[in-house]
Amino acid sequence: MTSSYSVAVIGLGSMGMGAAQSCVNAGLTTYGVDLNPTALATLKQHGAAEVGTDAKAFADQLDAVLMLVVNAQQVNTILFDLGLADALKPGTAVMVSATIAADDAKAIAAKLAERELLMLDAPVSGGAAKAAAGAMTIMASGAEEAFAKLQPVLDATAAKVYNIGTEIGLGATVKIIHQLLAGVHIAAGAEAMALAARAGIPLDTMYEVVTNAAGNSWMFENRMKHVVDGDYTPTSMVDIFVKDLGLVADTAKALKFPLPLATTAYNQFANASNAGYGQWDDSAVIKTFQGIELPVNQAPEVNA
Amino acid sequence: MTSSYSVAVIGLGSMGMGAAQSCVNAGLTTYGVDLNPTALATLKQHGAAEVGTDAKAFADQLDAVLMLVVNAQQVNTILFDLGLADALKPGTAVMVSATIAADDAKAIAAKLAERELLMLDAPVSGGAAKAAAGAMTIMASGAEEAFAKLQPVLDATAAKVYNIGTEIGLGATVKIIHQLLAGVHIAAGAEAMALAARAGIPLDTMYEVVTNAAGNSWMFENRMKHVVDGDYTPTSMVDIFVKDLGLVADTAKALKFPLPLATTAYNQFANASNAGYGQWDDSAVIKTFQGIELPVNQAPEVNA
Repeated sequence: MTSSYSVAVIGLGSMGMGAAQSCVNAGLTTYGVDLNPTALATLKQHGAAEVGTDAKAFADQLDAVLMLVVNAQQVNTILFDLGLADALKPGTAVMVSATIAADDAKAIAAKLAERELLMLDAPVSGGAAKAAAGAMTIMASGAEEAFAKLQPVLDATAAKVYNIGTEIGLGATVKIIHQLLAGVHIAAGAEAMALAARAGIPLDTMYEVVTNAAGNSWMFENRMKHVVDGDYTPTSMVDIFVKDLGLVADTAKALKFPLPLATTAYNQFANASNAGYGQWDDSAVIKTFQGIELPVNQAPEVNA
Repeated sequence: MTSSYSVAVIGLGSMGMGAAQSCVNAGLTTYGVDLNPTALATLKQHGAAEVGTDAKAFADQLDAVLMLVVNAQQVNTILFDLGLADALKPGTAVMVSATIAADDAKAIAAKLAERELLMLDAPVSGGAAKAAAGAMTIMASGAEEAFAKLQPVLDATAAKVYNIGTEIGLGATVKIIHQLLAGVHIAAGAEAMALAARAGIPLDTMYEVVTNAAGNSWMFENRMKHVVDGDYTPTSMVDIFVKDLGLVADTAKALKFPLPLATTAYNQFANASNAGYGQWDDSAVIKTFQGIELPVNQAPEVNA
């Protein structure tokens, strides 16, 4: 049963595809937008009302837009340079779920408000599997009206919605602080495993000790397994943390605040990217340590 | 039922007391050694065969010694300066469970070997509750003979024993690498919560988001609760991580290996200690961040 509520999901990557399918599953009239024809066909097959490369084609049908693109530049390009915001009906709610800076979120909200459009500053986490299950975690800020208008989308896509407050930018900031921890934990895990390799500790033993003790982290457990296995097929890439820890640094600068560990972790990821590991799994940040031997399975296939 | 196997537990702090009581519970003839008369009385009450301030008094009764003191200096003082090693029967096994440097562990083992004493390099983790339940995690290296001789003590005190290898120093190193992660995770948690405070994010919300997402760590979940509550009563003190991250740095230097994050975390804990927070809970490392307001409950009582 399809409801009269219509949403367009823009960006059908691993998270966006799952979120869009969850909207279909929840009975929402769902539109899908991406440049990748395979992704469009997959979503159409799953039951989308319509798919295409430009959301303006069905802009006047929409109650809501969910943007799951990569960064603020893509959000701005789609909404303002390509004209989607001008094509949406007044009162349409735009849920911006890319990981972006608070200042970018505020600027986007202001430009949407000029067009009488609502915005929810609503980054997500949880990975592709949770997105496909309609069980993302959403950390959102915005006006009550925006939350209310997007309730069917939130219900369809999230297991947990944190309402951080009314001020646009708070959602973006919570996500960025979360990424600070995620990035530092990956870099710390790599540093610990590199030291273990240098000291002659079997890495599988080190992994087992840590994952059963107080030194564990979600990222250590998930990502250092890749190091133990010598398999750097990306779950998430080094370059994602170059970007996200870059946003952390921008946030620190905007607030005039020192972040000694996050700054150090950024340096590690930037160095790994410059060494050619940008499209490898983010655990490949360990490759910047010299003078150690690591388990080798195989390098991932990387797009040139 | 008390067995003929006799063990002395030296150091009846939070871990040592639990381990000693677990030895009593397992039916081992258990001796307790500490300078604190209250701890001695507690263990005697629990069923120890004998307690006292000097283990030499019952050295000739012992099959094994379990040392749960603070550092390598205390181990050396008790064994060699005060003469316990000379009083033990040849073949007695000494389980050294303090967090110490690999080089210290090797030096201690060599001096014990001169006296025909066995050594297990066997740091522990798990906290007071697990020690009391006989469920510590032990990361041990040493000769098979040492493992065999200490089997009743390992059975009594540990839920999990990792055999890292035969070389003395590997156990110490695994523990130190574990402490690298634990220390960096506390400092990273403090950095993230400090940034949240600066950005106007409610700290209880930030805590809940992180603990339900991929940015979580065991230490974040355990220690940042203290920051949210404004209660710095020590679980473990700032000065413990000044010591342990100092051992991490010593290990890095001995192996000529760079540790960018651990070095940065050491700086944070050293700075916190110098600011007067050395005996506060280790989460008080957040107090070095200026220009933020944190929840205040009360400062812990600190010994002058």
